[in-house]
Amino acid sequence: MRIDIVTLLPEIFPAYLGASILGRAQQGGLARVVVHDLRDYGIGKHRITDEPPYGGGGGMILKPEPIFAAVEAILPNEDLSEPSAEGETSKTPVILLTPQGRPFNQEIAHELVGLPGFILVCGRYEGVDERVRQHLATDELSIGDYILTGGELAALIVTDAVVRLLPGALGDESATGADSFAAGLLEHPHYTRPERMRQWSVPEILRSGHAANIAQWRRRQALRRTWERRPDLLLKAQLDEADRHFLADLANERVDHGEG
Amino acid sequence: MRIDIVTLLPEIFPAYLGASILGRAQQGGLARVVVHDLRDYGIGKHRITDEPPYGGGGGMILKPEPIFAAVEAILPNEDLSEPSAEGETSKTPVILLTPQGRPFNQEIAHELVGLPGFILVCGRYEGVDERVRQHLATDELSIGDYILTGGELAALIVTDAVVRLLPGALGDESATGADSFAAGLLEHPHYTRPERMRQWSVPEILRSGHAANIAQWRRRQALRRTWERRPDLLLKAQLDEADRHFLADLANERVDHGEG
Repeated sequence: MRIDIVTLLPEIFPAYLGASILGRAQQGGLARVVVHDLRDYGIGKHRITDEPPYGGGGGMILKPEPIFAAVEAILPNEDLSEPSAEGETSKTPVILLTPQGRPFNQEIAHELVGLPGFILVCGRYEGVDERVRQHLATDELSIGDYILTGGELAALIVTDAVVRLLPGALGDESATGADSFAAGLLEHPHYTRPERMRQWSVPEILRSGHAANIAQWRRRQALRRTWERRPDLLLKAQLDEADRHFLADLANERVDHGEG
Repeated sequence: MRIDIVTLLPEIFPAYLGASILGRAQQGGLARVVVHDLRDYGIGKHRITDEPPYGGGGGMILKPEPIFAAVEAILPNEDLSEPSAEGETSKTPVILLTPQGRPFNQEIAHELVGLPGFILVCGRYEGVDERVRQHLATDELSIGDYILTGGELAALIVTDAVVRLLPGALGDESATGADSFAAGLLEHPHYTRPERMRQWSVPEILRSGHAANIAQWRRRQALRRTWERRPDLLLKAQLDEADRHFLADLANERVDHGEG
């Protein structure tokens, strides 16, 4: 898989991309992440990439031509100068990172990991000229309902979430299965040594060695946590008959305590 | 404001923290961000920070003692060895970054920017020992419904979103007012020069110089975009009478087209 990132701050990427799991995935040839300096495509002697907005207001807006030029340089064989027909998408997705995009989630990470590659365009300052959104981007993603100084952290988030899903990227293949959201639930609690820290001990059941009981305990903890913290997730979770019974009991417990 | 970050990957932070707006905010004395290497608090000669989970399963779990030790070193005057009474919180928030946390958003960023400081604890590997969550963390935040290789990017997201809100952090004070989510809406489109790029022109109205018309156009664009992409946000947005009329017209338009 190849991921291309277009940014005004290329210098912030190598440290994170080179560390830990992302670093090993690239060394192992699983993924190639290429960072492109938008300023290389800036206009004129001063390599201008941003100007004030039409219509007034604060902040600076990223100009469209440098972004088109950068993306076209990455995709030399795809003609982006023709407006594409409604619904037609470029072969390689051009993803604009913006708070206006559709919310990025684990499902989208799984979609992206199936592709040979994609391009991430990082906004900065007050925003990006609308023509980039309308005529260049094939998708827009938002990593959450908050405002950042730019799209660089969003690009790292998408890259990190996708690359770790590549087969072999994590040392332990089984590790992604029990992740939060993998089954649409928050994850169960984890404990490791020491068995007792200050006055707080590891739950008895986890030291029992009884695999079926442990699995049931974990499932119920995951269900309870999701119920308590993110009930919205239960609407889309994959639940079986036992899960539903347990949730019904939780609901009754609430009513009994006068909380529901 | 002071932000302390506890992490196993301190080396990934300086590049981002030193760049652009975050870098300037620190140089200008608005914020101080201190990164602490969790390994300095690791156990024994090998500075162990993680071990396999009790009860089996893949991955490694961050041990509790190094995290308690790191946070206690940052907060030498607060006694964390006593379990706090229900509802009582440490004076300085200790925020665990985890997909199980409450969803971070712009409202929480505004809450945090009012504090003198807070501590961010980054998980890594399969998770963090539950005792950290129960007896050390005073809050848990999730930056989105996706899985990352660790909490480091989440810590940078929170830091970035909060620091840019500090008065004086952005060059242009007016710039945060029209941000997405500032009024609970997605932002209106932005345009800058050139007036015409390839066959695509800047909308006439933005070149009219008529401030009131431009303001109305932008407001309606923001409402339309939010309606089309994130209608969930409209439930909490600050809307006036004119906004409600415009949204009602949008809704009727949909019905007329047989889409509603």
